[in-house]
Amino acid sequence: MQCQLLETPLLNIFNFQTLIATKAARIKHAAKGDKVLEFGLRRAQGIDGALAASRAAYIGGCDATSNVMAGKLFGIPVSGTHAHSWIMSFDSELEAFRAYAASFPDTCTFLVDTYDTEQGVRNAITVGRELREKGFEMQGVRIDSGDLAYYSQLARRLLDEAGFPQAVVVASNDLDEQIITSLKLQEAAIQVWGVGTKLVTAYDQPALGAVYKLSAIRDMEGNWVPKVEQSQQSMKINIPGVHAALRFFQEGKAVADMLIEEKNLPLQSDTYTIIDPLDPTRRKKLKRQGLEVVSLLVPVFEAGQMVYQRPDIHSIRARTQQQLAAFDRSHKRLINPHLYPLGLERDLYQLRNQLVLRAKGEDL
Amino acid sequence: MQCQLLETPLLNIFNFQTLIATKAARIKHAAKGDKVLEFGLRRAQGIDGALAASRAAYIGGCDATSNVMAGKLFGIPVSGTHAHSWIMSFDSELEAFRAYAASFPDTCTFLVDTYDTEQGVRNAITVGRELREKGFEMQGVRIDSGDLAYYSQLARRLLDEAGFPQAVVVASNDLDEQIITSLKLQEAAIQVWGVGTKLVTAYDQPALGAVYKLSAIRDMEGNWVPKVEQSQQSMKINIPGVHAALRFFQEGKAVADMLIEEKNLPLQSDTYTIIDPLDPTRRKKLKRQGLEVVSLLVPVFEAGQMVYQRPDIHSIRARTQQQLAAFDRSHKRLINPHLYPLGLERDLYQLRNQLVLRAKGEDL
Repeated sequence: MQCQLLETPLLNIFNFQTLIATKAARIKHAAKGDKVLEFGLRRAQGIDGALAASRAAYIGGCDATSNVMAGKLFGIPVSGTHAHSWIMSFDSELEAFRAYAASFPDTCTFLVDTYDTEQGVRNAITVGRELREKGFEMQGVRIDSGDLAYYSQLARRLLDEAGFPQAVVVASNDLDEQIITSLKLQEAAIQVWGVGTKLVTAYDQPALGAVYKLSAIRDMEGNWVPKVEQSQQSMKINIPGVHAALRFFQEGKAVADMLIEEKNLPLQSDTYTIIDPLDPTRRKKLKRQGLEVVSLLVPVFEAGQMVYQRPDIHSIRARTQQQLAAFDRSHKRLINPHLYPLGLERDLYQLRNQLVLRAKGEDL
Repeated sequence: MQCQLLETPLLNIFNFQTLIATKAARIKHAAKGDKVLEFGLRRAQGIDGALAASRAAYIGGCDATSNVMAGKLFGIPVSGTHAHSWIMSFDSELEAFRAYAASFPDTCTFLVDTYDTEQGVRNAITVGRELREKGFEMQGVRIDSGDLAYYSQLARRLLDEAGFPQAVVVASNDLDEQIITSLKLQEAAIQVWGVGTKLVTAYDQPALGAVYKLSAIRDMEGNWVPKVEQSQQSMKINIPGVHAALRFFQEGKAVADMLIEEKNLPLQSDTYTIIDPLDPTRRKKLKRQGLEVVSLLVPVFEAGQMVYQRPDIHSIRARTQQQLAAFDRSHKRLINPHLYPLGLERDLYQLRNQLVLRAKGEDL
């Protein structure tokens, strides 16, 4: 009964935040160490969708958010510039930049594409010089439209020639990991990426399909009885039993994940075979010797009591980045990644087949 | 300053809820009058994303939601069945159906595909007969996997033969307007459609790109001064001025929408030309005589006071459905719809061109 009540909120939270953290990791990966700012609030799916996305994007690898509320609630660094409408509310762009510089003298990034991007960069340089006379340095310029490769190179050249080599070029405008990769190939002179819509909605795949399944239930004597659904779609057949989820590391590198019945822990055998349930010919054999084994499941509630120390968001982010770094780069490339070995321990695989075939009235 | 503070929440709310209401209208359109239930909470983007989606889906045309919280907060009808895990928590499907029927004798819809869909329908019929002996009628069966065309027809035949012609067949499983259209073409015997992921995330286009633009500002004397952004991308150039948005109806049918400078109201001329700003060769000429003119903008706040009576959700839904009905079906078809005439009144179009060209230092 309790599990049934928790099913829906847990799935909502796990599905969405895992999705966005993954998307953020892909984008940060494409940015190759550049700063990535999450700019998604205006296009996110609901106000809480935006907050949850900001949190997950930071964990996944973003460096800051433009969502001030997310910053306040979760302790995420906040970052942003002014709007086009700020510029348009003044008689001239130069006047608008000066007013902005007067308010934020030491954190000025000027949005330069409201009227004419080249002139915008020149105006930013003018106000940057005025700031410098007062002892401040502008942070940089942001370009939000047009050909980002061309204009970033132009802005870089103008800034360098004017004596502002430290000023960064920030780019935004429907960016995602594919466009960032393309701009990198074109040698765009962009040091900071503002990514909004495509990140916070996971635009190219806006839902993750994790589901809730009953895999075991206690009988009257308190023994666990494995349960299996018998769907017409193989994808929908659950994995019966009470499971542990293990990740194997070799010299710091993640080499495979394995589900095993919890009752078979601690590991006894010297070798293990991990079988992909959707393609049983895909198998990974592991020798235990020299492998580090980490349990991926951690108890949070036991008998109604929370038994878990909640880490702060910076620790969660650090752990995520450390785990991501443990996967070989071949698993992380954006096109045709090498599939990470992942599956069922051989006995669990056989239990599942037995139960499915028994439910169909057939032998193995 | 106030507008700048409101920009972000308003864009978030308008963009997302308009998107989902539109998607719901498309799905309801494909269902051709059948009931559509919104089942999206588990895959929605955040808990509030789910709530906002349930609200918008109801306004767009859905008949009920499985989100009990949305039902409670907004007064939306709630509807749903049990889970596969309910079935699996019993020793047999028949036992599970009987327990469910004992709890909800007059609102039973049985999920029949946990083990074997045909046997599931037969078990539902068995429990339906037991209910009938006690004076209750089952509502129907739900199919959530496999070939929905084939199994819905099979379920229909079995239910009819067993004397349950009134029992409905509910289908779910990654449905959207395209799949519903395909199932209708295959004469699937489905009377109620449960639509989740693809609806509440607007899966095939998960963000709507409405933006905030400064189109006019008052000068020191209090006169409105039109403002125009000068983007490298034509799509990003705003429409300057203080606007009214008008919809023209002829014999109850919507025939065109037009933006016009507010100072030119009430309409004086006998004819109007509406120009598409992105393709000025697309024009619609209107004779005012015989046309009903409706203003689409309604004041909500004036001088800090709310001057608007908030309608209840059922009135909002009724108005939405009435407006949708006023559009010709050629605008509503899913593939290659006829574009609805929509644009700028000729003088406003010319003002925009003048300001854009003047900003570029050119003549018309």
